[in-house]
Amino acid sequence: MRLIKDRTPAEDGFRMPGEFEPHEGCIMIFPERPDSWQYGGYAARKAFVQVAEAISQSEKVTVCASASQYDNARAMLPETVRVVEMSSNDAWARDYAPTFVKNDSGEIRGIDWGFNAWGGLSDGLYFPWDKDNQMARKICDLFDRDVYHKRDFILEGGSIHVDGEGTCIVTESCLLSKGRNPDMRREQIEQVLRDYLNVSVVLWLPCGIYNDETNGHVDNICAFVKPGEAVLAWTDDRNDVQYEMSKACLEYLENNTDAAGRRIKVHKLMLPAPVTVTADECAGLDACRDEPARIPGERLAASYVNFYIANANIVMPGFGDPMDERAKETLQSLFPEREVIQIYARDILIGGGNIHCITQQIPR
Amino acid sequence: MRLIKDRTPAEDGFRMPGEFEPHEGCIMIFPERPDSWQYGGYAARKAFVQVAEAISQSEKVTVCASASQYDNARAMLPETVRVVEMSSNDAWARDYAPTFVKNDSGEIRGIDWGFNAWGGLSDGLYFPWDKDNQMARKICDLFDRDVYHKRDFILEGGSIHVDGEGTCIVTESCLLSKGRNPDMRREQIEQVLRDYLNVSVVLWLPCGIYNDETNGHVDNICAFVKPGEAVLAWTDDRNDVQYEMSKACLEYLENNTDAAGRRIKVHKLMLPAPVTVTADECAGLDACRDEPARIPGERLAASYVNFYIANANIVMPGFGDPMDERAKETLQSLFPEREVIQIYARDILIGGGNIHCITQQIPR
Repeated sequence: MRLIKDRTPAEDGFRMPGEFEPHEGCIMIFPERPDSWQYGGYAARKAFVQVAEAISQSEKVTVCASASQYDNARAMLPETVRVVEMSSNDAWARDYAPTFVKNDSGEIRGIDWGFNAWGGLSDGLYFPWDKDNQMARKICDLFDRDVYHKRDFILEGGSIHVDGEGTCIVTESCLLSKGRNPDMRREQIEQVLRDYLNVSVVLWLPCGIYNDETNGHVDNICAFVKPGEAVLAWTDDRNDVQYEMSKACLEYLENNTDAAGRRIKVHKLMLPAPVTVTADECAGLDACRDEPARIPGERLAASYVNFYIANANIVMPGFGDPMDERAKETLQSLFPEREVIQIYARDILIGGGNIHCITQQIPR
Repeated sequence: MRLIKDRTPAEDGFRMPGEFEPHEGCIMIFPERPDSWQYGGYAARKAFVQVAEAISQSEKVTVCASASQYDNARAMLPETVRVVEMSSNDAWARDYAPTFVKNDSGEIRGIDWGFNAWGGLSDGLYFPWDKDNQMARKICDLFDRDVYHKRDFILEGGSIHVDGEGTCIVTESCLLSKGRNPDMRREQIEQVLRDYLNVSVVLWLPCGIYNDETNGHVDNICAFVKPGEAVLAWTDDRNDVQYEMSKACLEYLENNTDAAGRRIKVHKLMLPAPVTVTADECAGLDACRDEPARIPGERLAASYVNFYIANANIVMPGFGDPMDERAKETLQSLFPEREVIQIYARDILIGGGNIHCITQQIPR
């Protein structure tokens, strides 16, 4: 593994492919942190295993497990899934694993962004985050890929979405938050995205999903279906605080164009009814930094947009909500060549994210 | 990774290739155990790095490092070497890593033997050995290889040598020791070797190197150079306790034949003068199970036979002994197409083994 410090992917002719482009595989992390995953993580691990099984139908899944959970991961996961030992502070592969870039010869390299638990000492979610921050480079080494060193720039994989043709979508609420890169101006942040993702246009949605503890990652509110088309998390309930948030994002997209000069075609993906955490669920969460990890009644950032595009499947969350079926139909119509697999994901959601957050694709 | 419990490699047409056959790569473990490696392992790690560098000249080396040593391993090792996180109890890849077998189509599988720290609760060298015993399967998973489950049989990679053509050499002192498989008769042990290594002849040397704490692993006294030819550790000093031991091995080899019916041509590889551990070295070793790890003046099992056959090199130990050069010349003449690299290995030897003990080849 060569550590590349003095060059950028754009200079070297590498770009981040869209998630809908072919994958070599997918990385996940086995969950165990007791202030993230209720009642010791047993239910969360079952849900993660279902996600791994679904993705492994069409691509090689590598699950990173701690030394103490290794045997358990190996026993719970199907034999087609690879389990490797790797320590982490929690289980959000999207945000710790490298962003992979590719050149025209098909060579794949990783980007090692800085990670600070979604806000560091400012408004980060746990401390310390040292093991998470080591993972991108460890994963590049594991896959024998060279890696661009960009740890001086804080970025999570869930805070960017690209169309693979020069456009990146982010949210202002996240990328301009005081816990990320407070000493950089918006233009400077945008330049890093241009240099490392090799994009020419960065679209800045104002915000993400209400109460999303990541400061509103884009991957919970908006995702490319293909170049020129995206889904946007939506509600028709004007009394829901999310209504104005989604509307502001829609208006932004209607008034801006992508790298190809197109107005992005936006498909509304309906949100489930607000999901709140129960007292019983909270009782199963260890305290985090002396404080309760969650308060009963707290609204969780449930959204169907947090799906994963596998080679032959869409792996999407369900919440036991009447809207589950309609959301599945929407995605099935948008991805006619992929079978949509819906997995009951409340046990992932309680941890603070969803299926897209716990996966990271490796392009082929 | 498929776990194969009901079949043997021989039944499936797999055999263990000779070490001199082509390799896909080599596995090593980064040393840190303070009762094995003096003064915190700094000198040992330097020596391991030199070994990894030498092997990496002609094959891909993967070094397993603990979470706490990962960054250090990555910084010390060349970028062509892959570093992966994996926990272990010590650093003897030969004995924990899988024995790899190969079929005629070139498919590679691993064997997961049981490991009990060279003798378990009987005369094992440390306790516990749980992480070591997990490694073979973890490594098979890492390399995406199916694995034969044989954990009910205790065997270390250093206790067997094969010619790839049906012959295996072992020592009675090790394989018949009370800490290995005491409930099995010699014939039963031999049958396991036949079934798993796919050999038809097992040659039983009586013993190994004097004071070798492994109960006399064969890989410290005798090694195949090619089918039909082997080196044997030798001394001409009749007052050395090793003299009668090596002589007994020579006589055994002169009176037995290999799987092809050949009498093995034996090349004597001279031993260095006895190497003993100093009081200063002992002072740098933490106690092991409340006892001193080594006693000043204790004789170490120094032998040039503990070399590694890399694709294009022989990587052999040196001890700062006048015999170093002669041993190097002997091996160079026996491996005319491989460049012999000699590495000063006292800092590995103090740990209890040498270059062959800290490496495990993966056949191609």
